[in-house]
Amino acid sequence: MSKFMGKDFLLSTKTARWLYHEVAEKMPIIDYHCHINPQEIAEDRRFQNMTQVWLGGDHYKWRQMRFGGISEELITQDTDPREKFRAFAKILPGLIGNPLYHWSHLELRRVFGIKEPLCEENADAIYDQCNEVLAKYSARKLMRMFDVKAVGTTDDPCDDLRWHKAIAADKTMKIKVLPTFRPDKAIQIEKKGFADYVKRLSDVCGFEIKNVNDVIDALLFRIEYFASVGCLCADHGLDYCMYAKPESSLAQEAFEMAMKGECPKKEAAEAYKTLVTIACAKKYKELNWVMQIHFGCLRDNNSRQFAALGADSGYDAVNSQSGVENVAPLLNAFAENEGLPKIILYSLNPNDNTALVSIAGCFQGDGIAGRVQHGSGWWFNDNRNGMRAQMTELANNGMLGCFIGMLTDSRSFLSYTRHEYFRRILCELIGEWVESGQYPDDETQLRKIVEDICFNNVNEFFGFHL
Amino acid sequence: MSKFMGKDFLLSTKTARWLYHEVAEKMPIIDYHCHINPQEIAEDRRFQNMTQVWLGGDHYKWRQMRFGGISEELITQDTDPREKFRAFAKILPGLIGNPLYHWSHLELRRVFGIKEPLCEENADAIYDQCNEVLAKYSARKLMRMFDVKAVGTTDDPCDDLRWHKAIAADKTMKIKVLPTFRPDKAIQIEKKGFADYVKRLSDVCGFEIKNVNDVIDALLFRIEYFASVGCLCADHGLDYCMYAKPESSLAQEAFEMAMKGECPKKEAAEAYKTLVTIACAKKYKELNWVMQIHFGCLRDNNSRQFAALGADSGYDAVNSQSGVENVAPLLNAFAENEGLPKIILYSLNPNDNTALVSIAGCFQGDGIAGRVQHGSGWWFNDNRNGMRAQMTELANNGMLGCFIGMLTDSRSFLSYTRHEYFRRILCELIGEWVESGQYPDDETQLRKIVEDICFNNVNEFFGFHL
Amino acid sequence: MSKFMGKDFLLSTKTARWLYHEVAEKMPIIDYHCHINPQEIAEDRRFQNMTQVWLGGDHYKWRQMRFGGISEELITQDTDPREKFRAFAKILPGLIGNPLYHWSHLELRRVFGIKEPLCEENADAIYDQCNEVLAKYSARKLMRMFDVKAVGTTDDPCDDLRWHKAIAADKTMKIKVLPTFRPDKAIQIEKKGFADYVKRLSDVCGFEIKNVNDVIDALLFRIEYFASVGCLCADHGLDYCMYAKPESSLAQEAFEMAMKGECPKKEAAEAYKTLVTIACAKKYKELNWVMQIHFGCLRDNNSRQFAALGADSGYDAVNSQSGVENVAPLLNAFAENEGLPKIILYSLNPNDNTALVSIAGCFQGDGIAGRVQHGSGWWFNDNRNGMRAQMTELANNGMLGCFIGMLTDSRSFLSYTRHEYFRRILCELIGEWVESGQYPDDETQLRKIVEDICFNNVNEFFGFHL
Repeated sequence: MSKFMGKDFLLSTKTARWLYHEVAEKMPIIDYHCHINPQEIAEDRRFQNMTQVWLGGDHYKWRQMRFGGISEELITQDTDPREKFRAFAKILPGLIGNPLYHWSHLELRRVFGIKEPLCEENADAIYDQCNEVLAKYSARKLMRMFDVKAVGTTDDPCDDLRWHKAIAADKTMKIKVLPTFRPDKAIQIEKKGFADYVKRLSDVCGFEIKNVNDVIDALLFRIEYFASVGCLCADHGLDYCMYAKPESSLAQEAFEMAMKGECPKKEAAEAYKTLVTIACAKKYKELNWVMQIHFGCLRDNNSRQFAALGADSGYDAVNSQSGVENVAPLLNAFAENEGLPKIILYSLNPNDNTALVSIAGCFQGDGIAGRVQHGSGWWFNDNRNGMRAQMTELANNGMLGCFIGMLTDSRSFLSYTRHEYFRRILCELIGEWVESGQYPDDETQLRKIVEDICFNNVNEFFGFHL
Repeated sequence: MSKFMGKDFLLSTKTARWLYHEVAEKMPIIDYHCHINPQEIAEDRRFQNMTQVWLGGDHYKWRQMRFGGISEELITQDTDPREKFRAFAKILPGLIGNPLYHWSHLELRRVFGIKEPLCEENADAIYDQCNEVLAKYSARKLMRMFDVKAVGTTDDPCDDLRWHKAIAADKTMKIKVLPTFRPDKAIQIEKKGFADYVKRLSDVCGFEIKNVNDVIDALLFRIEYFASVGCLCADHGLDYCMYAKPESSLAQEAFEMAMKGECPKKEAAEAYKTLVTIACAKKYKELNWVMQIHFGCLRDNNSRQFAALGADSGYDAVNSQSGVENVAPLLNAFAENEGLPKIILYSLNPNDNTALVSIAGCFQGDGIAGRVQHGSGWWFNDNRNGMRAQMTELANNGMLGCFIGMLTDSRSFLSYTRHEYFRRILCELIGEWVESGQYPDDETQLRKIVEDICFNNVNEFFGFHL
Repeated sequence: MSKFMGKDFLLSTKTARWLYHEVAEKMPIIDYHCHINPQEIAEDRRFQNMTQVWLGGDHYKWRQMRFGGISEELITQDTDPREKFRAFAKILPGLIGNPLYHWSHLELRRVFGIKEPLCEENADAIYDQCNEVLAKYSARKLMRMFDVKAVGTTDDPCDDLRWHKAIAADKTMKIKVLPTFRPDKAIQIEKKGFADYVKRLSDVCGFEIKNVNDVIDALLFRIEYFASVGCLCADHGLDYCMYAKPESSLAQEAFEMAMKGECPKKEAAEAYKTLVTIACAKKYKELNWVMQIHFGCLRDNNSRQFAALGADSGYDAVNSQSGVENVAPLLNAFAENEGLPKIILYSLNPNDNTALVSIAGCFQGDGIAGRVQHGSGWWFNDNRNGMRAQMTELANNGMLGCFIGMLTDSRSFLSYTRHEYFRRILCELIGEWVESGQYPDDETQLRKIVEDICFNNVNEFFGFHL
């Protein structure tokens, strides 16, 4: 029996242990996609207590607390932080097999030095111990502790990126913190608030946005701005991947409806979205950016809770109608327009894995290794099974050796432990192949594959120049 | 090598063996969803021969016999029972890896004391041996032998529940046998026989059903009746999960078409079905019932065999168009109507697992642990892989500790062995996690999880008060 | 640790090793579905160099070379063969976990006696060594070496089958080489070139094709011709499985549109396709043929590369809209028309596995074991995980003992090693079941199951009379 979260946690073979301890563990981290607030890095934020840093904005934990029968008061309301911590501790043992169980205990171990499994009985003592340790940490100190070399935040086109500039100007800061261009609000024409957003974008750009071409011009203008602040990538979040013939007149019709505050017809909305997305892609290609596409999410499914708590509070789900069938025509349209950038595809629906890798395989080329990537297990797939499924499928139908690896997608400075979790799973998978005779026991080659997936590939793919 | 179906069948680790033999095996059974005929319990039925009890109404076995090339005569026709038993024995060895292979041999062992693998050669001897043992058993004796504490049957709203009343009145009967309200015939408005059914329902209720509101009133009336006989839950079976805006006028249009014997338009039919389902859900919530929703089944796919043999004779399949995308809006509509009861979701399509658990996660709350459940692997998923997939997914994205566990969904008194099968798979899964360092080796906590999933959770969730 | 591709490659248990080495390895091969050019067999082709035989027409390898960043010049253009071989060798180590890694090394071992893992460093030496060995081989010698007893090629209805006739007439040739009737071009009415194809078919048949009935007559005429040359099966390739009411007038409308070079409406096209397919199926049934249905492929996704390189050059993907929901109504229509032949179903979408096996289960019968088969993992599923998934699902919901097993679907004489790969995976799976107590350790029965799946079942199912 292997010890709970011991040194060889998740590493069942000699090869896996060697690969993890001698290779993977030593590689620095590039967390190329996260939701950390750059202001917190710029100001080197400190945290008041464990509940704030651990449970504060973490809707993964909120969902599980609801699942465990905790009342909403102790989840999202303004109550005693110690009570909230106790409530989470109480439901934690029932999360057997859940990544949150592992993430939580990895964080308690790596950052706070706590090796006991957290439960109701020891919640108070652990809460006090954590707070004591927490007082010694700041945002940057945590990043340095995990050997983070670069992070990519997620930013609105209207953002002035002042915090990114402040960080870049700070000579004491060695870690690259780069923005990511996320133009969702300018693209999701069927959502409430589109017209207001266009006005805001118009103000930021300093010219009036009267039609679809103006939207595109505004986005390209902001892309240039983002590039001037060091941005290397964009991210498009879609409820489902759409593709429609990008007809200007139809797109314009949708734009006019939406600006009047009305919801455009589906066909017109899709023409608009496709048209604008193709134009952005071309610009990314020109700048040699990486374009991320996240799709397949059904958001805000519980209307009453949405009314009470707003978005990102734990009421999202996998969209079984993810539109994966539109990914190939969309990428093809990029290519036909001479604007197929480097791409990372993520679907929230694990059923899309095989299709997605096979589609990625249709748009490789131009001498760029892994030019269209299948991204690491996202959100509901960000667990041991989901990551194994993604890597196994990538290995089966793509090329695992080119994989750019892990990202946290997180709001927290504690969650870099997820890179450790990923790396253990990666090394275990490779170890299984080697020890069952499926891959040569060639130290040099294995070392290269693991170093590449942990760090080199993503460094090269984005052009971080680390 | 582990012995075929030996003591440690499916239990490969020390932890799994300890958990099964010291904990799971000792827990009583609540079989909360089955298709046993309550009359057979009331009358304490005895069986004439092994073919009757084993092959009589079991369309799982019929399918496999057809797969193995057995002629229909020996499957569903009125021929020599010994011949039929021989035919099944003949194809059994080819069912390597099939749950039927395990269920059959578990039943032969646990009930009949037969340890030899059944095959053509020993079929006659085993048939005789089984018949001899069978003479000693009755329905109730079998239930007691398996330590069954409660079962939930499946009953039509028109049913007078006389057998349930008879059982309840029988002081010698210690096992709870409760009905389940299954209003499918009143909801599936596009199926033949709807109008006749409505007339029957009307007669049972004693008032004329002239419109959709009357249908709802009739169902609510029968729900009250079922509750008065001790019913704690309902079950809705849907070819696919529908959701449409529950517009009364559209629903009424569908109703009028259907009462004339015509098939209503899809849009109208869905409005009707959604409207009636929302109304039922609200009543269930009021009574604190559990609502089961089974969806994703393509029934009676072989028209000629349907004409010859009728429904439930082995011609159903997984519906790849299961409508899982409608589950979130449907549950949201329940909630908006202040009528979201405790729910168990089952899709016949295993691809829905992740989506379904993620949707269940959006409707937790009110301080009820596991308020919306993802049900155990159903039908084509009721096998080792399907159960592992369901539990792994539930662990990954929900909370396994709150899981209400196994049900047989069976027509047979022999099939309580499936609880054993499930429990072995559960203990094996947990054993793997513990022995690989993914969960602490904490006897108290592990015992609690297994006892809860085997018995306590379902007892609490339904309110069996056992 | 097991040695890389050693004797016990993929065989981790004693039972698996025994089953493979004592049983599976000794069985001859029937490769019932491939894309080998019969002319190459008739003329007993020899190969100029390793690049020609290995990389020549293999779009699986081309895709991976693109994935690895190799420029198109070294993939499909007319450049130095040694350079191309080097380029493939260079990317090979990154293909960890990919079936191509295993296939390539199995071929290097079994045919060329090379045990070193191929990589950039040893590429030149291995290239020379391979060429030396290759000079000793011919098409037929390779087939004999792998103990191939029969192969099924893939042939257009217009084909005169001259090479098949030549092979059949050649007394020195002991291996059966039979054509497969593949009428895709006459069925895919929405594709360019349909009208031209109909004219060609008309010429071949010697009568004018003026309407849908004439198309059917022409196909039936050619089916008879194929049967006269020994053909035992047909293969229908569909982007998605369609089913529409087979209305003659609608089908005729589609035919007239298509003959004018216009694309018919979807509804009409589907009526045409369904109608013609049902008619073919009836003829197959009459002749006791096997009908293969391959569906779920999204072809030629990259328009620019399609323009440059044509079809089958590595730009196809899994169609997530595979139409699996239409398989049951289509087979039902065959049955209703008294024309349900023996069938093998293959979907390119692995999500269809459970649905497909469950549908196959609805059309068994007539005393034929495994009358509707779920085919072995196809294309993007033709890997260890895909094959395990297919066999596990077939075991869970069908009858593995009736499975007709492996086919290569390949264009190469080297790829019979894939039967070895499949057999190792099969024996490993069965070994796991036996050693964990899930199936009796019964030598006779296990031997029978493995022999049947490797050879006997397919021999019987097709009627090869070997």
